[in-house]
Amino acid sequence: MAKTNPGRFFEDYKLGQVIDHAVPRTVGQGERALYHALYPARHALYSSDEFARGCGLPQSPLDDLAAFHVVFGKTVPDVSLNAVANLGYAEGRWLKPVYPGDTLRSGSEVIGLKQNSNGKTGVVYVRTRGTNQRDETVMDYVRWVMVRKNDLDAPAPDAVVPELKKVLSVDDLAIPEGLDFTNYDFTLAGEPHRWGDYQVGEQIDHVDGVTIEEAEHMMATRLWQNTAKVHFDATFRPDGQRLIYGGHVISMARALSFNGLANAQMIVGLNGGAHANPCFSGLTVRAWSEVLDKAETPVPGVGAIRLRLVATSDGSVGALKGDDGKYLPGVLLDLDYWALMPV
Amino acid sequence: MAKTNPGRFFEDYKLGQVIDHAVPRTVGQGERALYHALYPARHALYSSDEFARGCGLPQSPLDDLAAFHVVFGKTVPDVSLNAVANLGYAEGRWLKPVYPGDTLRSGSEVIGLKQNSNGKTGVVYVRTRGTNQRDETVMDYVRWVMVRKNDLDAPAPDAVVPELKKVLSVDDLAIPEGLDFTNYDFTLAGEPHRWGDYQVGEQIDHVDGVTIEEAEHMMATRLWQNTAKVHFDATFRPDGQRLIYGGHVISMARALSFNGLANAQMIVGLNGGAHANPCFSGLTVRAWSEVLDKAETPVPGVGAIRLRLVATSDGSVGALKGDDGKYLPGVLLDLDYWALMPV
Amino acid sequence: MAKTNPGRFFEDYKLGQVIDHAVPRTVGQGERALYHALYPARHALYSSDEFARGCGLPQSPLDDLAAFHVVFGKTVPDVSLNAVANLGYAEGRWLKPVYPGDTLRSGSEVIGLKQNSNGKTGVVYVRTRGTNQRDETVMDYVRWVMVRKNDLDAPAPDAVVPELKKVLSVDDLAIPEGLDFTNYDFTLAGEPHRWGDYQVGEQIDHVDGVTIEEAEHMMATRLWQNTAKVHFDATFRPDGQRLIYGGHVISMARALSFNGLANAQMIVGLNGGAHANPCFSGLTVRAWSEVLDKAETPVPGVGAIRLRLVATSDGSVGALKGDDGKYLPGVLLDLDYWALMPV
Repeated sequence: MAKTNPGRFFEDYKLGQVIDHAVPRTVGQGERALYHALYPARHALYSSDEFARGCGLPQSPLDDLAAFHVVFGKTVPDVSLNAVANLGYAEGRWLKPVYPGDTLRSGSEVIGLKQNSNGKTGVVYVRTRGTNQRDETVMDYVRWVMVRKNDLDAPAPDAVVPELKKVLSVDDLAIPEGLDFTNYDFTLAGEPHRWGDYQVGEQIDHVDGVTIEEAEHMMATRLWQNTAKVHFDATFRPDGQRLIYGGHVISMARALSFNGLANAQMIVGLNGGAHANPCFSGLTVRAWSEVLDKAETPVPGVGAIRLRLVATSDGSVGALKGDDGKYLPGVLLDLDYWALMPV
Repeated sequence: MAKTNPGRFFEDYKLGQVIDHAVPRTVGQGERALYHALYPARHALYSSDEFARGCGLPQSPLDDLAAFHVVFGKTVPDVSLNAVANLGYAEGRWLKPVYPGDTLRSGSEVIGLKQNSNGKTGVVYVRTRGTNQRDETVMDYVRWVMVRKNDLDAPAPDAVVPELKKVLSVDDLAIPEGLDFTNYDFTLAGEPHRWGDYQVGEQIDHVDGVTIEEAEHMMATRLWQNTAKVHFDATFRPDGQRLIYGGHVISMARALSFNGLANAQMIVGLNGGAHANPCFSGLTVRAWSEVLDKAETPVPGVGAIRLRLVATSDGSVGALKGDDGKYLPGVLLDLDYWALMPV
Repeated sequence: MAKTNPGRFFEDYKLGQVIDHAVPRTVGQGERALYHALYPARHALYSSDEFARGCGLPQSPLDDLAAFHVVFGKTVPDVSLNAVANLGYAEGRWLKPVYPGDTLRSGSEVIGLKQNSNGKTGVVYVRTRGTNQRDETVMDYVRWVMVRKNDLDAPAPDAVVPELKKVLSVDDLAIPEGLDFTNYDFTLAGEPHRWGDYQVGEQIDHVDGVTIEEAEHMMATRLWQNTAKVHFDATFRPDGQRLIYGGHVISMARALSFNGLANAQMIVGLNGGAHANPCFSGLTVRAWSEVLDKAETPVPGVGAIRLRLVATSDGSVGALKGDDGKYLPGVLLDLDYWALMPV
């Protein structure tokens, strides 16, 4: 009996199936420091316990994206080991901050299945939920991936494509208990721009760039216990390149966006995202953002801002797709998220 | 008076000599996180405080091999600075788990000496003991190295070669106080295979590979305060390559062995080991295991499994030595250890 | 309105101006472990809580240079984003050890301004103060940088060049409260040489070398939240090389100096320093030291030693400047500091 994990194939997924993912993980001060070593992260709420307390939280949480990566990483052996492509994200919500000492688990429910017309692959939709040691959901999100069939003769399941919100409304967002920006220190945060200073349609070039190294993306991806071979094994692809985990690009771009969005402190919603082109070591990642929407929240002093975050390998700003509707070759990431800012 | 450490030469060792190694080290959450960033480590007992508590331990310990590396690293300035070769290990026992906050020291006793017939080198056998801040021994092991003579005219000592067990018996193994696998969660651990599912002689191809980077092996080796020049200084060898610390390969192979041995949770005995061929950056490390033996333990629910762990640079599985009795060029490591599994 | 930080230009600085730098930072066990992974740091006081307690401190502090890097990193967006050159340091004092859990902020006062005769640049002198969450100053130092003018027509300010001590006297140095070397364990510290064993004028070749990797210097520099583009972006310089943060070389050389100066435990004063030549990845950093002075301190058992620490890329020892008075091309760093040793 083979003891290693072959991964699931398209015909192995059933609608409504619930998968408890393996290897719970206690995150702590080490993960926090590594996040700051791997990305130029500077949002003050995630850098200083004192600043976080000034905003009504008990201490500085783990970066929201680190929480996402930990929850996501656990799904890889069950969801994307035989995936051909990571097609999209929707309805991502951060529901509870994650603090050093918390232990995260994750589980997924199959909410959609659709075999492709070629009969060789299909699309699997899962809603993944990350929970802490108190069984509180810290985040959930929907992801869909294209997965290979192993047995091409397996019958196609009834096609079910879930209805997903294109954009979360502000009512869908969870604002951490106690969050209070009334004594927010803009000087310590690094920029004076408040929620009211941003206009829908405004674009911000985040200026700085980081050239990507193999050792760094592998350390990051391992830290989240993401085991996809293509990130680590230079013999896996014919071109000898290691494909960089898309989440590494997300974290890099988000960290770079500090320069111009220092007060977009907390990520609370993920509306969608596309890994437009693959990223490899040696590329220099830059980022720009566009304000897509703004909304008031029920919490005094806290505004929500919807941002498009684009990572590029060519330093372009504002350009996204060509006339053919496809992403331009210099675009690595197109992410649509909600963040909280002081009004 | 020269103030730097010239290291000891063969004639400087005396039978029965006890060496207290320098630089005690407090290990914590940072070392734990770095271990997970540097190796694809996923054994649940070392990943989650909750899982460890479910197994009767107070919290998740530092990886057993991290404890070994810390204890080993301290011996380098005293034992292997002038070593020509690291010849072998025996009688390695993990006696107490190491927890964040523990401070480790190590000391060695010279238990054997044998000058080589060329008169230029000799073999030194030491038993090294790692202790924590309560003077409890956390692990001990025997290592023997070939060391250069500085004064070729120094008389050869009486040859003493210690009698070492080829294999530890199950009675030699220490099972951590409180360890209890009766409520073991196989789903969270990642695989359903229990001790009873493994057969002596069974071989497991761990499938995954990791291509080695300079920055990673140097960070790991520094973290264990191992100062051997050959790991860090590209000008040291004529070929300009940095030789990778053998322990980096051990940890990499052990972490890769999760895929097929996810429930071989704790390493408790080291029967022997050979660094069959040198490892350099750019190689892709893979691993396979062979079940060498199985034994019941006095603790209900806990079985011991003796495993051969082989790291390769060529992806071969099952092949170890050529007709000449020498390790094949694609074999990096041949390790023989005992682990604890739920029965 | 542009939202990204353009940095300050020479004409933006006013004498007496006080700048509160952004992004406070809580440092912890993760930063401590990363410091040991990035540098071959082995000074026992910073490695072991038990050793630190044996020296009268409550636990092992964060490395003194890590504290310096955190305080320094915060000044970059306000002081050196448009700097042409980092000209010098003076009057650096470590006033309080930094412990895991402390939150550091920093602020600078402009204490000197002098426009250069070319009218295009000027020299800005700042005194930077790092404080912890109790508003205690943990360190302060003076730095001067050459900064570009943006508006070449801006009038030159009155030239004010502060009088700075060439060398701190022993009375300027702060000895941590409680520090006590009377039960100092030289065996655990790694070397027998005490303060009395060092002679003014003595030179020590620290022997070991480390070849520098891109991933490592970037991780270090990010960890200190130093955002200068030139360290991260390979497209920034015409030669495609990333300039290594000078502080990375300082920490590397200091860590290498353990071999010969294992008992120069605590850095308490920075008299001056020059980054003699730029450092790039691929170079192998070595170090040598010269004893410049010695002084008794008011604390029994604690001596002060003034050291020149030189980092090189060519392994030279003792040579510093050519006949033209300029640093030789193989010299990377020339640092002048005070450390505390057991007498």
